[in-house]
Amino acid sequence: MTATQWTAAALLQRYDEVRSHTERLAAPLSPEDQTVQSMPDVSPTKWHRAHVTWFFETFVLASNEAGFAPFQDQYWFLFNSYYEAVGPRYNRAERGVISRPGAHDVGLYRGNVDARMQDLIDGLDQGTIDKVAATIELGFHHEQQHQELLLMDIKHVLSLNPLRPVYGGAPAPLVDTDRMGWVEVEGGLVEIGHREGAGFSFDNELPLHQVYLEPFRLADRLITNGEWLEFMADGGYRRPELWLSDGWAQVKTNGWAAPFYWSDYDGVWFEHTLHGTFPVNPGLPVSHVSHYEADAYATWAGKRLPTEAEWEHAVRTDTGDAAEPHGNLADTETFHPRAAEPGNGRLRQVYGDCWEWTSSAYLPYPGFHPAAGAIGEYNGKFMSNQMVLRGGCALTPPGHARASYRNFFPPGARWALSGVRLADGGAPA
Amino acid sequence: MTATQWTAAALLQRYDEVRSHTERLAAPLSPEDQTVQSMPDVSPTKWHRAHVTWFFETFVLASNEAGFAPFQDQYWFLFNSYYEAVGPRYNRAERGVISRPGAHDVGLYRGNVDARMQDLIDGLDQGTIDKVAATIELGFHHEQQHQELLLMDIKHVLSLNPLRPVYGGAPAPLVDTDRMGWVEVEGGLVEIGHREGAGFSFDNELPLHQVYLEPFRLADRLITNGEWLEFMADGGYRRPELWLSDGWAQVKTNGWAAPFYWSDYDGVWFEHTLHGTFPVNPGLPVSHVSHYEADAYATWAGKRLPTEAEWEHAVRTDTGDAAEPHGNLADTETFHPRAAEPGNGRLRQVYGDCWEWTSSAYLPYPGFHPAAGAIGEYNGKFMSNQMVLRGGCALTPPGHARASYRNFFPPGARWALSGVRLADGGAPA
Amino acid sequence: MTATQWTAAALLQRYDEVRSHTERLAAPLSPEDQTVQSMPDVSPTKWHRAHVTWFFETFVLASNEAGFAPFQDQYWFLFNSYYEAVGPRYNRAERGVISRPGAHDVGLYRGNVDARMQDLIDGLDQGTIDKVAATIELGFHHEQQHQELLLMDIKHVLSLNPLRPVYGGAPAPLVDTDRMGWVEVEGGLVEIGHREGAGFSFDNELPLHQVYLEPFRLADRLITNGEWLEFMADGGYRRPELWLSDGWAQVKTNGWAAPFYWSDYDGVWFEHTLHGTFPVNPGLPVSHVSHYEADAYATWAGKRLPTEAEWEHAVRTDTGDAAEPHGNLADTETFHPRAAEPGNGRLRQVYGDCWEWTSSAYLPYPGFHPAAGAIGEYNGKFMSNQMVLRGGCALTPPGHARASYRNFFPPGARWALSGVRLADGGAPA
Amino acid sequence: MTATQWTAAALLQRYDEVRSHTERLAAPLSPEDQTVQSMPDVSPTKWHRAHVTWFFETFVLASNEAGFAPFQDQYWFLFNSYYEAVGPRYNRAERGVISRPGAHDVGLYRGNVDARMQDLIDGLDQGTIDKVAATIELGFHHEQQHQELLLMDIKHVLSLNPLRPVYGGAPAPLVDTDRMGWVEVEGGLVEIGHREGAGFSFDNELPLHQVYLEPFRLADRLITNGEWLEFMADGGYRRPELWLSDGWAQVKTNGWAAPFYWSDYDGVWFEHTLHGTFPVNPGLPVSHVSHYEADAYATWAGKRLPTEAEWEHAVRTDTGDAAEPHGNLADTETFHPRAAEPGNGRLRQVYGDCWEWTSSAYLPYPGFHPAAGAIGEYNGKFMSNQMVLRGGCALTPPGHARASYRNFFPPGARWALSGVRLADGGAPA
Repeated sequence: MTATQWTAAALLQRYDEVRSHTERLAAPLSPEDQTVQSMPDVSPTKWHRAHVTWFFETFVLASNEAGFAPFQDQYWFLFNSYYEAVGPRYNRAERGVISRPGAHDVGLYRGNVDARMQDLIDGLDQGTIDKVAATIELGFHHEQQHQELLLMDIKHVLSLNPLRPVYGGAPAPLVDTDRMGWVEVEGGLVEIGHREGAGFSFDNELPLHQVYLEPFRLADRLITNGEWLEFMADGGYRRPELWLSDGWAQVKTNGWAAPFYWSDYDGVWFEHTLHGTFPVNPGLPVSHVSHYEADAYATWAGKRLPTEAEWEHAVRTDTGDAAEPHGNLADTETFHPRAAEPGNGRLRQVYGDCWEWTSSAYLPYPGFHPAAGAIGEYNGKFMSNQMVLRGGCALTPPGHARASYRNFFPPGARWALSGVRLADGGAPA
Repeated sequence: MTATQWTAAALLQRYDEVRSHTERLAAPLSPEDQTVQSMPDVSPTKWHRAHVTWFFETFVLASNEAGFAPFQDQYWFLFNSYYEAVGPRYNRAERGVISRPGAHDVGLYRGNVDARMQDLIDGLDQGTIDKVAATIELGFHHEQQHQELLLMDIKHVLSLNPLRPVYGGAPAPLVDTDRMGWVEVEGGLVEIGHREGAGFSFDNELPLHQVYLEPFRLADRLITNGEWLEFMADGGYRRPELWLSDGWAQVKTNGWAAPFYWSDYDGVWFEHTLHGTFPVNPGLPVSHVSHYEADAYATWAGKRLPTEAEWEHAVRTDTGDAAEPHGNLADTETFHPRAAEPGNGRLRQVYGDCWEWTSSAYLPYPGFHPAAGAIGEYNGKFMSNQMVLRGGCALTPPGHARASYRNFFPPGARWALSGVRLADGGAPA
Repeated sequence: MTATQWTAAALLQRYDEVRSHTERLAAPLSPEDQTVQSMPDVSPTKWHRAHVTWFFETFVLASNEAGFAPFQDQYWFLFNSYYEAVGPRYNRAERGVISRPGAHDVGLYRGNVDARMQDLIDGLDQGTIDKVAATIELGFHHEQQHQELLLMDIKHVLSLNPLRPVYGGAPAPLVDTDRMGWVEVEGGLVEIGHREGAGFSFDNELPLHQVYLEPFRLADRLITNGEWLEFMADGGYRRPELWLSDGWAQVKTNGWAAPFYWSDYDGVWFEHTLHGTFPVNPGLPVSHVSHYEADAYATWAGKRLPTEAEWEHAVRTDTGDAAEPHGNLADTETFHPRAAEPGNGRLRQVYGDCWEWTSSAYLPYPGFHPAAGAIGEYNGKFMSNQMVLRGGCALTPPGHARASYRNFFPPGARWALSGVRLADGGAPA
Repeated sequence: MTATQWTAAALLQRYDEVRSHTERLAAPLSPEDQTVQSMPDVSPTKWHRAHVTWFFETFVLASNEAGFAPFQDQYWFLFNSYYEAVGPRYNRAERGVISRPGAHDVGLYRGNVDARMQDLIDGLDQGTIDKVAATIELGFHHEQQHQELLLMDIKHVLSLNPLRPVYGGAPAPLVDTDRMGWVEVEGGLVEIGHREGAGFSFDNELPLHQVYLEPFRLADRLITNGEWLEFMADGGYRRPELWLSDGWAQVKTNGWAAPFYWSDYDGVWFEHTLHGTFPVNPGLPVSHVSHYEADAYATWAGKRLPTEAEWEHAVRTDTGDAAEPHGNLADTETFHPRAAEPGNGRLRQVYGDCWEWTSSAYLPYPGFHPAAGAIGEYNGKFMSNQMVLRGGCALTPPGHARASYRNFFPPGARWALSGVRLADGGAPA
């Protein structure tokens, strides 16, 4: 959570950019679309729009605005997601039964908070900015996370509708891909985590610490749909010896036989995307697979998933510290991962296609301490039963990804835009 | 399902009345309100509006319209409720995840079917009318049932919203009620069921048949909130000996301690209604209690619930065959049951306040045969694990109730607008 | 619950007969067999043995024995089944986790209570006998009910064991059966219920009351396995139009495709019985079908199930009031229903083969009042969500069945030894 | 899985020791006790006895015995625990419904396999011994794991019995404990894992590899019941800020308010143990707490749990490589953890009291590869959603614990004999 040096003008401009991007993403969605919660993990669009607004109201305005009063008392309760310290929360699984405030009312809420935030920032002297900018900047990145979730969530909502609604964008042409290559990485005692002065990070990327790595190899691109079809053809979903025990239990209980959004129509695999339902495109990265599937694929391929430290070190070695060296994020042409460009001996598809499952459980770095107060509930308390994903995806907003970023989901989650990059080697001699 | 003698003009007029009443009921509800399914038993408002339209399209237009084509193929699937014979059905519990067609699209669907129905009826000769009128009339009564359900369902949706939204209407003044009296009814071999020539009925009200009754007494009004508070104060919800075994299990599992929509705020009982949340009004009929609660109350009071035959016979004896003798149905001033008028030795609150639980399981009358084809799925297949309710309620549309009408819900259901009338006597000498 | 006139000697003799029959039934079962609870509806054998003993201790000894003290305080709690008035109960679904007291300890408990009961009865004068005999006689019939349940329950326990253990008995030879005939029954106003002076009955068989019946026909024997195979071959388990809605839901949820204990091995249907697993014998009555299946079969056959009043009236008309006119109960040669004897114009297989599903919900007779106190919980509180079965079965102990006996199970229950007898006619003219 | 050098005589002697220890542990348990499965995680005693026998039959006899035939075909299916490669498995959660084979039959099975194993080993030349000894030795350690589980499982079974049965042993006197001290450990690049030549290990302890550690401190003893009572008194189970999110969800869902086997009788905390139910002894280590509780306690105390690498390195530094330096395992006097001896600047209670939760997820070591074939399913496939525990406990058999041993349970598990040791420091400068 180290903050950049901000001025009021820069804060105002960034505030406007981030906030208006959310509204652009919600614009194609009807009030009815914005109301639905299709499963407990999914939140309604209008809830996302309101919750990120609540964040600014609660963590910035409440403690900095003169004569603060909440826009609406009840919103305090409705749009708290998981901050136990702020007070009682509305049950996550029941967000979809709340028809009011409607999409338009949420727009009024956003407008009100935006005006108050702009007034607030406008009136701050630099000394106060230095104190509050970190929280405002956290609000930017928080809202960006929800921009990504908003798209993942509405993708699920629309997937259940027999009318096959389209969110937006157009499909990529049918493509194939060149052979996967490997990037060799030297091991040793390496530094992992966010570096001082390198811009924003979440608290879970800290502290910077040392990890010992054996030499290893990292695949230079993501696994494709075409490769995944080979795994399926070879009985990938029917062979228990390939799977973690909990993963195999899910295969059997849920009848997994293909990635999350694939459906078989008369022997042809189709994929639901935000731009519609189309035959599976073999050259695109496989997406919406769980950690269990990624791990089983790696076992089948005689390889493994990388640890998060391997991933981070390889990316830094390959690209330097630049935040988004391959930064083709937030593809608004397809809202979907893209085919890899031709191989050039370096890592491809690092940030803008699929979040990449690692073999690392989401645990605190040595010496990690969450921030004090409610803000401290941001990350640390989720460090249980989740696996780390690295990189970014086609729905990640510009400026949001970086080498030290730690995303996380439970190993059975499939509605996130997740994919697979293999690793190899790393055994001690 | 005996039909009245219809002319095209009369059918058209009635069609227009029934259809426009549905839209009037939906008018106060936003697109978001119309989308929510708050529990599996509840359907979204826009689903109700579309499903009753689907009924006319499927059972009238499909077999009578020249060059019939459905308005939208997928609607065929989405808005079928339980007619297995018509094809696969969309899972009831997942109606709330379908954001499209939206409320406006459903309006277009309704307009299209209305125009086609009007064209169809306009062009029919009397001979054809005589053949199709029964199905169209069934469609009227079907839509009326859903008008009532639409209100019961949205009442539940709004009840979960911490903003306490109001559907419409205003509260009644605080009232008290005179003492409950008894109407004595002679027994003997009596006729039960719908009589030839008495207008429309559903198939489950047939055949007319004989039942032997011992003499008994029926309460002249419904049990009030005030009387229910006495039951509660006397440990009604804590004494297993008052309860059916399945009912007691629900008390314990669900923590029942008061009627469905009552909440205790700082020691005062409030009730959620369609006109808002107000302190419990002691003189109004108690409502939204399950069969189990009604039965436990009767046991506590040293009385019992009437059988459906007793109820029907008592009402006929008291009021003659007039369909709605006390017909203060569909109260659009409060959308809520009203206080009983002063006693006059006859039955009060028969039709327009609360559906009344009986002690009769919902079973076929002797010689009952469902109609052939999909229409035959209307009633008969639900004759299991449900209890009969008689009368009508404050949400029942005008012209919909009658003495032989058999409503039914599972004994644990509480979201229906149900109340309690006691019986006594009836034991053989 | 009307009692016979008893003497001490007769009571002692009957006590010994009933109690030792239970032990004979448990004798083939190991301590391990007697411990298992294979599903919540099933109770362990040693629990049955202890619970019927607890009944005598609680309802007879506690109020009549001088210086009464329970054999073991904790047993008071462990072996109460559903008598809320007696105190807290041990959770029914967890009877299978109680390893102690073991089977041998339960034997000691039985011996202790037997000795005390014998002492008690021995010392009673006739006046006291006249007061307590009704409760002791209720204890006999209560224990007989559990004898039947003990066998139904252990049948289920053993059915889950891949070793295919045998309880006892030998299979009947392969048989076929003559054509089903019909017995015509005149209707009218008839008396239903237990008659004064006709020996013991449970409270739910009272009061004697009048019911009006249209003329009808009752099948002269039960439906056979062979006939059931025709139903299956004609898609009986795949055609929703044959089923009650709740029944069809169970077909789909539970994958019902044959009676409960049937399994398909390489295209041949086998049936698990207490005497082992054998190919389905076409001439024997079909058994272990739910009410839903019985109802669907009747619909498929163009017939219906009888009401309980029709069944009782037909049996009385056919056989007079004799308790067990066809009394081939408790078949210890096969522990299984037997083939019908050749038709002779009268009802066959009335008592000793399968309990017969009726179309009547289990509800109180007009004027029914449960007994006061804990004993009053015997029957009345179960009058919800259950269907009545009439007759008796091959596991019913001798002397336990009669024309007015009302057995009851939920409509989806299949582990009881239930079968199907059809009715026809009965429609009002 | 590195094997020691074995001779036939040594193998035979060890075989006899391990096998007869299992029977000694089962001896106090009745056939009924041995049959019960009190929850899905628990296995019946007779299942443990049979399953460890099945292991020798399947993995040793089947491939080495001339003319091999299984003792009983069906046992092949019934006593396979999780080896998918061996064939279909019997559903874990239903082990408690299998009454046969009974406890005595399982004894016969054990006797048969023992005789065949002894014959086999007797007849082997040294070359063959060198090949099969590794699998036989794995069987010894497998059986020892089940000896520990057998006791943990029967502890749970007996805990549900209102008769409060005792397994064996006597309580320790009431004790208090001296203040917890800290052992300082230097960090650096350290070796973790099982060392070549140091006797047996499971595959999950390999490969030996390097880990970088910052300097840290490890508590010199376990947290006591007395200290846990302070945590409870300070609202430990009521303060969400102390808990991981998944842990807090379990607190609320399951109503956790104290360790697993504690019950409050009239304001005094009692603890269920294998030697009976007694008031909580403040000086004994707290036991049967989940990872979530251990983590919340550490947060409350301003400390943290150690990583598994920290634990292993600290123990090696403190004690050298000796397998069981503090080896007071398998306490048959109390079957319960004991009070710490007075502090002496070194680590106390390392092996014989409670398994110690670490902050490490159970994941493969760098370069880990499971063995080929069914044996390869031993450990690797469970590396998901579990946390590592280190040390050993009062139920661990002698010779079974070592510094590199990795035990694992899901973070919510409480029926294992688990406790808490704190760590501190370790942050990078």
